[in-house]
Amino acid sequence: MTARYLPDLHVLAAEYRNGTRRCQDVVEAAIAGRNASFDPVGPYRSWDADMVLQHAHLVSEAFRLGWDAGPLQGIPVSFKDLFACRGWRTFAGMAEPLSEDWEAEGTFVKNVRKQLPIVMGKTHTVELAFGGLGTNAHWGTPWNPWDRKVHRVPGGSSSGAGISLWEGSCLLAFGTDTAGSVRIPASMTGMAGLKTTVKRWPTDGVVPLSPSFDSVGILARSVRDLAFAYEAIEAGLGRMDRVRSRDLVGVRLAVPRRFFCDNLSDGIDTAFEAGLHALESAGAVLVPFETSPAEQAYSIFVQGGLAGVEALVFIEEFLPERMNSLDPFVRDRIVSAASTPASEYLRRRHAFERLGKITWEAMESVDAIVTPTVALSAPAVSELQSVDSYRSSNLLALRNTSIANLLGLCALSIPVGFDALGLPVGLQLMGSPHREAHLLGLGLSVELAVGERSKLGIRN
Amino acid sequence: MTARYLPDLHVLAAEYRNGTRRCQDVVEAAIAGRNASFDPVGPYRSWDADMVLQHAHLVSEAFRLGWDAGPLQGIPVSFKDLFACRGWRTFAGMAEPLSEDWEAEGTFVKNVRKQLPIVMGKTHTVELAFGGLGTNAHWGTPWNPWDRKVHRVPGGSSSGAGISLWEGSCLLAFGTDTAGSVRIPASMTGMAGLKTTVKRWPTDGVVPLSPSFDSVGILARSVRDLAFAYEAIEAGLGRMDRVRSRDLVGVRLAVPRRFFCDNLSDGIDTAFEAGLHALESAGAVLVPFETSPAEQAYSIFVQGGLAGVEALVFIEEFLPERMNSLDPFVRDRIVSAASTPASEYLRRRHAFERLGKITWEAMESVDAIVTPTVALSAPAVSELQSVDSYRSSNLLALRNTSIANLLGLCALSIPVGFDALGLPVGLQLMGSPHREAHLLGLGLSVELAVGERSKLGIRN
Repeated sequence: MTARYLPDLHVLAAEYRNGTRRCQDVVEAAIAGRNASFDPVGPYRSWDADMVLQHAHLVSEAFRLGWDAGPLQGIPVSFKDLFACRGWRTFAGMAEPLSEDWEAEGTFVKNVRKQLPIVMGKTHTVELAFGGLGTNAHWGTPWNPWDRKVHRVPGGSSSGAGISLWEGSCLLAFGTDTAGSVRIPASMTGMAGLKTTVKRWPTDGVVPLSPSFDSVGILARSVRDLAFAYEAIEAGLGRMDRVRSRDLVGVRLAVPRRFFCDNLSDGIDTAFEAGLHALESAGAVLVPFETSPAEQAYSIFVQGGLAGVEALVFIEEFLPERMNSLDPFVRDRIVSAASTPASEYLRRRHAFERLGKITWEAMESVDAIVTPTVALSAPAVSELQSVDSYRSSNLLALRNTSIANLLGLCALSIPVGFDALGLPVGLQLMGSPHREAHLLGLGLSVELAVGERSKLGIRN
Repeated sequence: MTARYLPDLHVLAAEYRNGTRRCQDVVEAAIAGRNASFDPVGPYRSWDADMVLQHAHLVSEAFRLGWDAGPLQGIPVSFKDLFACRGWRTFAGMAEPLSEDWEAEGTFVKNVRKQLPIVMGKTHTVELAFGGLGTNAHWGTPWNPWDRKVHRVPGGSSSGAGISLWEGSCLLAFGTDTAGSVRIPASMTGMAGLKTTVKRWPTDGVVPLSPSFDSVGILARSVRDLAFAYEAIEAGLGRMDRVRSRDLVGVRLAVPRRFFCDNLSDGIDTAFEAGLHALESAGAVLVPFETSPAEQAYSIFVQGGLAGVEALVFIEEFLPERMNSLDPFVRDRIVSAASTPASEYLRRRHAFERLGKITWEAMESVDAIVTPTVALSAPAVSELQSVDSYRSSNLLALRNTSIANLLGLCALSIPVGFDALGLPVGLQLMGSPHREAHLLGLGLSVELAVGERSKLGIRN
């Protein structure tokens, strides 16, 4: 799997431009990564190596002629199958594809593709992105490659995104995050993941789950790669938001051990504490943080939050005939939202807004909030057969990540070590709204401080 | 009532500054206008002539010393009693005042008051602004001064705003408009009224009715005065949006006679047609306009729209103990919203958004949509005693104005003549979102073309 040995994206981009590496070689290596997979499901819902190779030849030729459409040119990328992409049907994790309207690209994909990345394929997702573990009754659950013996979930809902990076079939994966759907798969597959602030990156042309919270995010092999991609995407959207590495000396990190550290699976606690120790050694100042707004937000989320109702309305408006063929675990939560009164829905929205404002104010005195990304080790698919076991695992998986969505924050997950099962553990950094560049700047230093332990895992 | 003979605001502002007129004389005339009223209810919920005179002396002194805080300095203004204003309690049309939190000014009032207008008092409103006729069971219904024999409604919910201008106790009246609450009283009292695009002028510190549609607006004696005030307010908010008078030759005015011209009271049709004729004579081109999006939006509005649910949540969150003491006509619609499912609420919101987009696109080929502002003559209070008669009159009064709120437009009402009862009739111009300056520029010419017929009424 030669693709695993590729350099950071900023180095690769430079090599493309100085002629020391050809896009088509990189893409061939990426295809080889895909072909070497042991998993019959794999990360992609839609994959077309022939078409991709044609694109790669074209882009190689463009580089040779000095034509430069932007920093992402020639980078192999994957899109979660929730993004409409010209040339591919959109399934959104459903059994049948959506109408052809869902091949018409929205603002985000259109802007990214102007830079001519190589779109390798569309990755699996939980149906309508409504679940944090990565299961899918229609297409099967992609196998988490960190345990070859037991079929464990890869994290969701962007269930193919992390694996597409792991196997080297892309170097940048686009996902969406409504309650953790970028950060959970990043954490469970040992990748770095960025969830942007809601409404920062446009979501038209992306199948909605819960428009109040849906946000676009990216996964990559390192924070360095995330920072490169973030700047490129922002530039494509007409903004010049630059990431500057931030020394950790004197940086104030809020560590709310209550709530976020309850019920951690074996080894996640020790990996997290080791990470905190490394940050302290690098000069960061750890301070306590009041968790009651987060706890209140999560308790409303557990009661159903907003997603069930918002997903229900989308299905009823656009796909009414599919209600009965939904993945049973997804359908369950959508159907039960029908009885939510409008006043209850608005009360929940107001509560999230109020709790968000309290949190934004409290965050003015710290640089970021640090927590474990996911509280539980990736469960085996066999443990998730009943509605009850699925529900409790799903809610626990989403607990720490959902807070950033519910309270309007941006957030980052960075590999920090391994749990007792040898599975990757992520460290979550949550930042104030629209402080993505600041958060990534911190993340660059955090990644160095905690030793990029997952990269070792990938490369061996 | 000397105040009636005051010049346009831009002339008055110049006179203040060149020393030919003193603020305190203007304010004394305004107070005389108030004192001359025949109506025991009158336009003000809260009025304090002594305090106002002190302010006027202070501002006169400021002018003498050359201190100039902005174009609104020394202009007598009234605020609907939904705006929190330092120095006054806020009742929002309720029997008892809200908590003292509602004396803390929001962004809008704070910015307006930085220019040192003279706040004459706080004007009556329908309770929580939830009604278009102007009735109020707690405080009585202000008497529409255009019929001294029969007690007719003044239009609502900004029920005191138009009358405060009519009697000359202010020269600029601030109101709010969720479905017509600025334009209906403007139309029914022979004044000009501007409803701004939702979210253009901040509504924090204004008691909410339906945050999805609540917008701030202004009433004045002419479009010229509205244009003066609009520019001053925009400047206070840090924007330089200028109004330029627009010649009517070749201007394309959409005239949707279907729906908007159904069930007009006697004389409203002829006044409207005479107005259209005057506009055509001035060179405007009248074109047809598809009304089906407006009709669909109105039918959802009639089913309850969004306001009932949004008002219910506000009451339950902030004033739960008042639910039983609400004005019966207001309470009725709020309580019945409790049974609306969240999915239905979201479906309505989506429908309004969709219909709005269709309308914005259709409006690209015209300069404005022109309709009668209100379909019915101001009803007598005695005709509104039953829930049914109130409901049908209220819905008909709101029909033509609500469309601008439901579809996200800005809108203007300009006096155009008189109905069969001798009551003023308004001409409504609706414009694309955030095209207020364009709409006012058109309005200046429309006002000249239709002859300012209401001004004659005021002055005789």
